[in-house]
Amino acid sequence: MSSHDKFILYWLDESRAHRILWLLELLELDYDVDVYLRHPETWRGPPELFHVHPLGKAPILEIKFADGRPDLQLAESGLIIQYLLKHYDPHRKFSPKGEREQIKMDYYLHYAEGTLEAILMSMLINSTAKRVAPFGMRTLAKVYSRGVNNGYYIHEYHLNLRYLENQLRNEGTGYFVGGKLTGADIILSFPIYENLFDNEAGVKECADETDLFKKYPNLAAWCDKIKNNPAYMRITEMMRNKVDEMYAMKKKRK
Amino acid sequence: MSSHDKFILYWLDESRAHRILWLLELLELDYDVDVYLRHPETWRGPPELFHVHPLGKAPILEIKFADGRPDLQLAESGLIIQYLLKHYDPHRKFSPKGEREQIKMDYYLHYAEGTLEAILMSMLINSTAKRVAPFGMRTLAKVYSRGVNNGYYIHEYHLNLRYLENQLRNEGTGYFVGGKLTGADIILSFPIYENLFDNEAGVKECADETDLFKKYPNLAAWCDKIKNNPAYMRITEMMRNKVDEMYAMKKKRK
Repeated sequence: MSSHDKFILYWLDESRAHRILWLLELLELDYDVDVYLRHPETWRGPPELFHVHPLGKAPILEIKFADGRPDLQLAESGLIIQYLLKHYDPHRKFSPKGEREQIKMDYYLHYAEGTLEAILMSMLINSTAKRVAPFGMRTLAKVYSRGVNNGYYIHEYHLNLRYLENQLRNEGTGYFVGGKLTGADIILSFPIYENLFDNEAGVKECADETDLFKKYPNLAAWCDKIKNNPAYMRITEMMRNKVDEMYAMKKKRK
Repeated sequence: MSSHDKFILYWLDESRAHRILWLLELLELDYDVDVYLRHPETWRGPPELFHVHPLGKAPILEIKFADGRPDLQLAESGLIIQYLLKHYDPHRKFSPKGEREQIKMDYYLHYAEGTLEAILMSMLINSTAKRVAPFGMRTLAKVYSRGVNNGYYIHEYHLNLRYLENQLRNEGTGYFVGGKLTGADIILSFPIYENLFDNEAGVKECADETDLFKKYPNLAAWCDKIKNNPAYMRITEMMRNKVDEMYAMKKKRK
């Protein structure tokens, strides 16, 4: 694989795509970002995303190979990170050393989407649903959604947060695998940092939890590392500007 | 890796673990199954599963290496299948040929758990929740859960089933990747065959859909292949007997 390969990232605001952008920036690859905005009410991605991939989701990563092989389109965050690290991280800057650590990192690439994200999304969707319940049913909807969340998702949420806190404590390095930032931290940045630690109001509403930072000190310290990572700060600032610009243009057009 | 390595599969009834057992059988590996039964009311796994792994889930696969390396414990179905095929399928009987097909198979190993299963589980949990709603609230709970399901999950369910039907049609071989059974079919056997096509009453209840087999002929034909696969039939029969035995023993003890 060549460092002259080009990448197009289909990026949706407040989505799982941000961490793929982060990895492209960390690996210093030659990328463009194609920005999509969520529908302000339904919170879904826009219809245009379906022109990119039949499931209308982000992130999608397209690779244009310098050696003339046909373009490659990748979906699923875990697979995209696995592919980028395998082919574009020759000095293994963000890949751990040794087979056991590699398996541990690959585990998190599956776990983050296969287990953790499913719980958080369901908790969030149930919590949002009570706000869009028809007038006259809101209190009952609230009781019911709290029931579903308490009955299943919040139990799983606590279980997984305790597990992740222990994993960090046992690893003892401040990172999920070994002594440096790897694909494990990159994939977990969305569910742990963006969905939870950077979303205190949402966590309060869904899980009635207000002491995240005290209760999970290892996770909190890890989130600080994400937030202050120079490449992460760069892409976050860049995308904030792009999204603001797009909203301003939309307003103008009206 | 040696064919004398030994495997212990922690298997929970009616769970994602069944397809890992299927793969162990297909690869003719030397395995034992450790059987766990769900709690008949909460439908959760039993507390004993937490002694195996801190998240209390199945499947967990333990590998005891013949060459004396320390045991390896694997979680997450996609990772387990990836690992088994990489190390124990030397003639690539269940791994596709060529890089593009390999990427496609790896995609399904992430997609099945990262996208599809999350939708089906949420739909099912919301649908179950209405049955356990407190007396006097059941009708409202039903309206509400139907609202959440209609508002989000059922939309995603149809989108994904149409997508999968098209993927099979475009592949044109009766399998998800290339012209033979691969890890892609194995991981999709749980969400597509076990959760949906072998669960007509559940699908009727969750999604109000009764014509699965007519509407998705390619998926229906694919399910027939799973159901009639000799190794799949063998493990299904074997586990049915084991589970029946365990229930009989439980009854006796009471």
